[in-house]
Amino acid sequence: MIMVKPVRLALLGCGTVGAEVVRLLHEQAADLTARVGAPIEIAGIAVRRMGRDRGPLPVDPALFTTDALGLVKRDDVDVVVEVVGGIEPARTWLVEALRSGKSAVTANKALLAEDGGALHDAAAEGRADLYYEASVAGAIPLLRPLRESLHGDRITRVTGIVNGTTNFILSAMDATGAGFTEALEEATELGYAEADPTADVEGFDAAAKAAILASLAFHSRVTAADVHREGITEVTAADVASAKAMGCTIKLLCIASRGPDSTGADSVSVRVHPAMIPRTHPLASVGDAFNAVFVEAEAAGQLMFYGRGAGGSPTASAVLGDIVAVARNRLSGVRAPSESVYADLPVRPMGEAVTRYHISLDVADRAGVLATVAGVFAKHDVSIATVRQSGRADDASLVVVTHGAPEAALAATVEQLRGLDIVRSIASVLRVEGGA
Amino acid sequence: MIMVKPVRLALLGCGTVGAEVVRLLHEQAADLTARVGAPIEIAGIAVRRMGRDRGPLPVDPALFTTDALGLVKRDDVDVVVEVVGGIEPARTWLVEALRSGKSAVTANKALLAEDGGALHDAAAEGRADLYYEASVAGAIPLLRPLRESLHGDRITRVTGIVNGTTNFILSAMDATGAGFTEALEEATELGYAEADPTADVEGFDAAAKAAILASLAFHSRVTAADVHREGITEVTAADVASAKAMGCTIKLLCIASRGPDSTGADSVSVRVHPAMIPRTHPLASVGDAFNAVFVEAEAAGQLMFYGRGAGGSPTASAVLGDIVAVARNRLSGVRAPSESVYADLPVRPMGEAVTRYHISLDVADRAGVLATVAGVFAKHDVSIATVRQSGRADDASLVVVTHGAPEAALAATVEQLRGLDIVRSIASVLRVEGGA
Repeated sequence: MIMVKPVRLALLGCGTVGAEVVRLLHEQAADLTARVGAPIEIAGIAVRRMGRDRGPLPVDPALFTTDALGLVKRDDVDVVVEVVGGIEPARTWLVEALRSGKSAVTANKALLAEDGGALHDAAAEGRADLYYEASVAGAIPLLRPLRESLHGDRITRVTGIVNGTTNFILSAMDATGAGFTEALEEATELGYAEADPTADVEGFDAAAKAAILASLAFHSRVTAADVHREGITEVTAADVASAKAMGCTIKLLCIASRGPDSTGADSVSVRVHPAMIPRTHPLASVGDAFNAVFVEAEAAGQLMFYGRGAGGSPTASAVLGDIVAVARNRLSGVRAPSESVYADLPVRPMGEAVTRYHISLDVADRAGVLATVAGVFAKHDVSIATVRQSGRADDASLVVVTHGAPEAALAATVEQLRGLDIVRSIASVLRVEGGA
Repeated sequence: MIMVKPVRLALLGCGTVGAEVVRLLHEQAADLTARVGAPIEIAGIAVRRMGRDRGPLPVDPALFTTDALGLVKRDDVDVVVEVVGGIEPARTWLVEALRSGKSAVTANKALLAEDGGALHDAAAEGRADLYYEASVAGAIPLLRPLRESLHGDRITRVTGIVNGTTNFILSAMDATGAGFTEALEEATELGYAEADPTADVEGFDAAAKAAILASLAFHSRVTAADVHREGITEVTAADVASAKAMGCTIKLLCIASRGPDSTGADSVSVRVHPAMIPRTHPLASVGDAFNAVFVEAEAAGQLMFYGRGAGGSPTASAVLGDIVAVARNRLSGVRAPSESVYADLPVRPMGEAVTRYHISLDVADRAGVLATVAGVFAKHDVSIATVRQSGRADDASLVVVTHGAPEAALAATVEQLRGLDIVRSIASVLRVEGGA
């Protein structure tokens, strides 16, 4: 029997995901060896503190170290697997690994969205592989299809539910009529929301994933700063009820689309915000903490990818798939296709994004109110799709749904409505996506 | 500017898919060149008959030839793209191409399921790439995730709707209450069914895809002959109504699962048959001619892939994605991971598959009928989940839904029920999948 040299990993981080990676590497060792063509060995595990109780891990305790950079630099390390998260020191470690020709596997969406360029440049310099399937939508094999399978097609739009915490909260609000605070409390109790839920509920996590998806889909570098971001903290029980009345549900969507800007030049629009979608849309039935990404391409048409977006095991599955890929590449002495950014499309401002609005107004119950309100929409060149009037006397209300119009025109319309005497208040403004 | 040598294709077949491949290669030439790193050129197009009207194609008419084998053998051809279908002469062409080191892209599910081994062996011999994303579920990027992304995980089950024609027919029967013949006529009129629909409605097409999926998911060679196959021609309007009454819908499913056989040894079960699934199951809402494949893996959990399974553009999208991949590999002088069949699992007989049955019986309305019927189930060690009795006098009926039991035990139960005096007739027997 020929002894093949093992592929040796440096694992940076041993929290929920890291521990699961260790467990799977051990449990599936025989399968992984057969698939890769060589055994995969752990050369070392970098942790912040030694001696923390990590439960029974099938690994030699001597492999643990607190010197991550030292581990990354070791000559006997072939692949660096980073599951720590955050910008620094993860960036320093990964850049060091890639520049010196080590392959890197990371689940670090924040870093990729903030400064993915630095990683890709380091990978190019070191002629090394950089894989990050676990950074978006956990276990769902999504990045490889975007990076490879759809490279013969032209993607026009990616619409995703990519944050499990907010989807759990919005699903609960939809199911029970609860308000945001109450639903967040439930999510926290059940472990679906972190003690500090800001990154999730304010849309930062989804925005990072949106940037990664847009970069891959449109062959351009898009960063988190390019993403228009709104969270779900202002979604009310009344909004959810309004959506229900329209046959819709509210989801936090990440939307990346390609199209002409105001001058007609090809450009990219990337945004994260809550939106109403029809209950008949495939994304509407994505409940609880599941993720799903809807991809539209010119030739392929509509595609959807669905699965678990977070959690130790699902994330570890994606990390392991990447480890197998980079290990195989090393054994055959090849490198995966490098970053594809040839299109280099500009990101157009949110004001130019074409969206639809659902606006609930409390108005004075007087003759001519509708005419006045309609006039404001017309002045901003925003076409009204439907109007519903209800109530009378002191609590008359108008619900207006528009056709697609530039975000800036819609915002200006709402601003002017707010200033009208006959408008007592604007009860809610929600975008509407996914349908005619 | 450095001139890079183009990658040259031999296109075998120029029907709906082939013509769309030609069109997309032309339309997206600049993008494809950027993504591959070299232009992709058509060296020749083999057709059965010259001069057939193929509409306006952006290609030099001099490229057409009726000598496919001659084209495949030409020294200036790097990649052979086969979209003819059928076993021969496609197999001869592809084996010739692969053995001589040319990369091959094919959409030929029948050939892959019947004799994929011959193609994989030829690819190994010629150290060439064999890609076939378009062979299963059209545009849905499914095979690359199975071949690569999920290689760090253990897939336990693949459940798919992989035939658009039968899904269209069953969706129509569900929506309108029509019978099979009527729904087939509608499908034929609308172009969703071919003049001879046998391959679709008898499940041959789905069985071929099931074999390909099982091979990839379980790292074993599975052929069409290994697949238990039942079509939808015997599904009646009454079956559809029964399913509805249970909160279910009927789909033609391909199911490939991994598990112990009767001796406890690891094995694979692959089958295609109509089955009731709960309306709440993600596959239940896959309507019309769409395809979807549900994958369960130990670490990743449940995943679903959804999109258009057929048609010129969607299929061409998958073919183009493969062309980009093999062209890139050629330029960097590498080969994709070869066929993974190390597990070499045996296929267990259908009798050992564990399924659930929904059985409608017309019975005599007499005391003791239920006890007698229940006794038959017990004798075969089949546990009953629910029983519903309805009607009286001459048209009493019993609907029994079982728990999971070996197919052989269920079949023997039905056979014995059929022989009972008190059973006037067995109105329907349907398998139940996807849920408790």
